[in-house]
Amino acid sequence: MSDRSGIITLTTDFGTRDPFVGIVKGVILSIFPEAKLVDLTHQVAPQNVAAAAWTVKDSYKYFPAGTVHLAVVDPGVGSERRAIAARVAGHFFVGPDNGLFSPVFDGSERVIELTRAELFRDEVCATFHARDIFGPVAAGLAKGLELEECGEPISDPVKLALPQAVAEEGVIKGRVIEIDLFGNLITNIPAEMIPDASILVLVANNECMGVGHSYASLNNTAPGAIIGSHGRLEIALRNGSAAEFLGAVVGDKVELTVI
Amino acid sequence: MSDRSGIITLTTDFGTRDPFVGIVKGVILSIFPEAKLVDLTHQVAPQNVAAAAWTVKDSYKYFPAGTVHLAVVDPGVGSERRAIAARVAGHFFVGPDNGLFSPVFDGSERVIELTRAELFRDEVCATFHARDIFGPVAAGLAKGLELEECGEPISDPVKLALPQAVAEEGVIKGRVIEIDLFGNLITNIPAEMIPDASILVLVANNECMGVGHSYASLNNTAPGAIIGSHGRLEIALRNGSAAEFLGAVVGDKVELTVI
Amino acid sequence: MSDRSGIITLTTDFGTRDPFVGIVKGVILSIFPEAKLVDLTHQVAPQNVAAAAWTVKDSYKYFPAGTVHLAVVDPGVGSERRAIAARVAGHFFVGPDNGLFSPVFDGSERVIELTRAELFRDEVCATFHARDIFGPVAAGLAKGLELEECGEPISDPVKLALPQAVAEEGVIKGRVIEIDLFGNLITNIPAEMIPDASILVLVANNECMGVGHSYASLNNTAPGAIIGSHGRLEIALRNGSAAEFLGAVVGDKVELTVI
Repeated sequence: MSDRSGIITLTTDFGTRDPFVGIVKGVILSIFPEAKLVDLTHQVAPQNVAAAAWTVKDSYKYFPAGTVHLAVVDPGVGSERRAIAARVAGHFFVGPDNGLFSPVFDGSERVIELTRAELFRDEVCATFHARDIFGPVAAGLAKGLELEECGEPISDPVKLALPQAVAEEGVIKGRVIEIDLFGNLITNIPAEMIPDASILVLVANNECMGVGHSYASLNNTAPGAIIGSHGRLEIALRNGSAAEFLGAVVGDKVELTVI
Repeated sequence: MSDRSGIITLTTDFGTRDPFVGIVKGVILSIFPEAKLVDLTHQVAPQNVAAAAWTVKDSYKYFPAGTVHLAVVDPGVGSERRAIAARVAGHFFVGPDNGLFSPVFDGSERVIELTRAELFRDEVCATFHARDIFGPVAAGLAKGLELEECGEPISDPVKLALPQAVAEEGVIKGRVIEIDLFGNLITNIPAEMIPDASILVLVANNECMGVGHSYASLNNTAPGAIIGSHGRLEIALRNGSAAEFLGAVVGDKVELTVI
Repeated sequence: MSDRSGIITLTTDFGTRDPFVGIVKGVILSIFPEAKLVDLTHQVAPQNVAAAAWTVKDSYKYFPAGTVHLAVVDPGVGSERRAIAARVAGHFFVGPDNGLFSPVFDGSERVIELTRAELFRDEVCATFHARDIFGPVAAGLAKGLELEECGEPISDPVKLALPQAVAEEGVIKGRVIEIDLFGNLITNIPAEMIPDASILVLVANNECMGVGHSYASLNNTAPGAIIGSHGRLEIALRNGSAAEFLGAVVGDKVELTVI
């Protein structure tokens, strides 16, 4: 048990109006009363697996090794899709096999199909595997269960094709992958790809200058490009919403050129 | 204390924008620092006692026995309505005497009016009993206080008339009691009343077929009837909102016939 | 450590849709696994420092002494604004030096500028000090670190000018400082200023009668004035929204006369 932190993070599209999340927590605490439960978000857009995948990928590394990350955005619940648990770099992941965890897989991952029904709740409802399968397995792992005790190894977990930034002929091309609460445009262009020089960013048919150092260094009159806290290029407007200002939406192309 | 889980669940209509819930938690942790606090929901529609009653009824049994369920949707706060605590099947319930807990009462319940002011905060504000009365009593119960130490037994707690499904001349008649975040229509028709056969469901002047096994087994073009995770009939649309598709609202009649 | 409760409260404008708050919690739990985390709110209106200041001021005293209150509403993140920690009456406060904590300062406060970079995360991102500076320092304080170990004392923390109620020629003049989820108008007129007599309240060009004892004592047809749970004058409408009824907004003048 010494390699477990006792923490379970939760990422779902269940919202916070209905008691679904609380019910999952009740099931977990019934199995492992010492669990420390941390919500990442329950407001993933309904059934948006890619958004949940970005959330888990961007967050898990801020938790201690031995943390269990439960994530359930599961349009295929009750179908033939597999249920999985995985271990990567000392972290554990539990949820549906729909690609949700594939962005954290780095080649070192070990993935298990959840086949040991004695770990589940006695009755498994076809529409609520978070309560009946994933919650109980996450509780077991947080308590010290070995990954291998959860089922059979598989080598072909579903992979999600998250859009990757590419560099072509001196232009770095990416996408807006998320718009946060403040209206900042989060892109998929990682800091490592961004040259240490002044840049021009084309997004939603607008040009922005960068790379500023912080939000406060931006001016109030136009959005600018900065390295955001995710470690990726972000377009932000000081004291305002870059998304509204630019009319930008998730999926918009982002092109970056050195000037 | 060995019959307590240390868990306190919270159900309110306080929302999460104001710090009311955090203040109640501060009061609880001041009395019982080891309390494990789990939110069921704080987004009950303002003053909708029936919605809170369904939430508590549908959720409490997923927690270990010895859990305290604090629920405060309390249009009568500061009036003559009583404050109560109750014990049913090893679970504890604390809140206003307005019927919120009556759906979990099964005849075995023991109900106490909260009359021991020394358990409350020194000053009781007429508008915030969750902070000044219910929170402190819930903390005391979670810590090991006996129910009987909280006040005087009563035999006439307020009963809430939640609509019950009935079977008449081969037709099972119920209501839509809730619409969840995904637009699924939750009805009050329990699984036990639903025949093991193909059925036709009439809801909001539309006909739906059922009983499907899971959301994934529904088709994308029309809503269908399934047994939901609450253990009741649910009308769902695969990858969509049945409520929008059907124009259905809470309170709509639902009629079920074998075909 | 015996003067610490182990509790850390969190107040931000980060919202709950993005995983920012969860990430801060991960960082805290990595440093102090026993931390008990309580959300006050993450729905402060973006960059509204005054709203966050009211939240902290109204809430902190309901927690045990030795609690750490982390609050981050930080339009100046990444600029030259200082990062601070403070101690007042046994409570600890951590956040940006923008006046957020000044309403809790009573002359006895001790304020430290956070200058000991070894307490921070190894890399400090200019846009996410909650994760890289404030979270780690809050975790350290909750774990037992002395305030003085966090940096250098300062005597000139930024002061926020929250509007204060005044009494002029028999009229008590204040402002609506907040509208809660129920539509109650929260004013800045403290109970101590309100005479023990019938009063007339002028707000948004409407007259309301008071002081009622509780929400239930109000009538359904017009808003009335009561002493709210914050210990300040509140305008409420029984079973309705006073804000909508009166067309009132935050900042509206409130005048109170004895009748």
